[in-house]
Amino acid sequence: MMTDLILHEYAASGNCYKIRLTAGHVGARLERREYDIMKGETRTADFLANVNANGRIPTLQIADRFMPESNAACLYLAHGTPLIPKERFDHADMMRWLFWEQYNHEPNVATLRFWYGWIGEANFSELQKANLPGKRAAGLAALELMDEHLATRDWFAAGIFTVADIALYAYTHVCEAGGYQLSLYPNIQAWLARVAAQPGHVTIDA
Amino acid sequence: MMTDLILHEYAASGNCYKIRLTAGHVGARLERREYDIMKGETRTADFLANVNANGRIPTLQIADRFMPESNAACLYLAHGTPLIPKERFDHADMMRWLFWEQYNHEPNVATLRFWYGWIGEANFSELQKANLPGKRAAGLAALELMDEHLATRDWFAAGIFTVADIALYAYTHVCEAGGYQLSLYPNIQAWLARVAAQPGHVTIDA
Repeated sequence: MMTDLILHEYAASGNCYKIRLTAGHVGARLERREYDIMKGETRTADFLANVNANGRIPTLQIADRFMPESNAACLYLAHGTPLIPKERFDHADMMRWLFWEQYNHEPNVATLRFWYGWIGEANFSELQKANLPGKRAAGLAALELMDEHLATRDWFAAGIFTVADIALYAYTHVCEAGGYQLSLYPNIQAWLARVAAQPGHVTIDA
Repeated sequence: MMTDLILHEYAASGNCYKIRLTAGHVGARLERREYDIMKGETRTADFLANVNANGRIPTLQIADRFMPESNAACLYLAHGTPLIPKERFDHADMMRWLFWEQYNHEPNVATLRFWYGWIGEANFSELQKANLPGKRAAGLAALELMDEHLATRDWFAAGIFTVADIALYAYTHVCEAGGYQLSLYPNIQAWLARVAAQPGHVTIDA
């Protein structure tokens, strides 16, 4: 059991949830500190100076050191556990899906959840309206790619449940809040059920 | 010396260069296959079926397997070398900068280099014009964050030259093509010189 771990977070964020989900799987206890991102609480001078100069949650505090970037924090927590494959190709392949999640999935699947769920369609800016079709198309392509990958596999990398599954689960399982339809992706649906059935699983609202 | 490595690439891309730079540092020989992204050569049915279903370069081919995502390919090549710190926090901290590079740096610093250098300002779409101020501001914030981080450090993570330095070097050293000014960031300039002075360094046009 690790101690001295503080998660600086906004609990409804999938990026924060993936750290709690990893902690659930490795048996780490996290103290949780909530910041209201809608009130700019991660952009205060104190937060920028003492938690994350990049002004973002989640940041995992480990004693007196700080680890921003959700997937890096998950990798820290899962260090040395079976959630991280050791074999050279398998390890890089898990990393591949973590980078893909941040580049191709999160900016489209997570962002539209935030836009629809927190900003509200009636309040979209002109720039958001202009970017909506591109983000929708990219999010649909990301989900389609996941569904195809899972057509012949139970897990994303290495043939086992890894941090890649945890990271991708976080925003995929709540994607309908951003206007995506899980019913279109049967392989994703079956994989979501497999992830949720793993021992140690915790829900996003836990 | 590894063999059977084929880099599917567009050589001028910084994401492709970072893989060649890692290969230079670890003494790996890469066969190189060029695709013209301006002609859609990474979106053909053959490429999608046989190289990367995500339609993007770089993809590192390792015998008959494929590794998309530039930073994952770098991690594969650098596996087991001093370019990847082993200590738990240091390892995650290097990963933190790799995720940050793909989320906060590349979409702003690299994208504007592509827009100005390949599309041309006269040909910007209305959507590109609308997104330009946001991407410019985010790119400036990314470079500022790097400069501040390097004010008290020689390298990004673990106190040593790692894959994080390689990944961040790729688009930072050519950022002026996207309208950024390196003269504003003295710590970045000194770090760029340190990276270029490392044994094994190769240039982007090599």
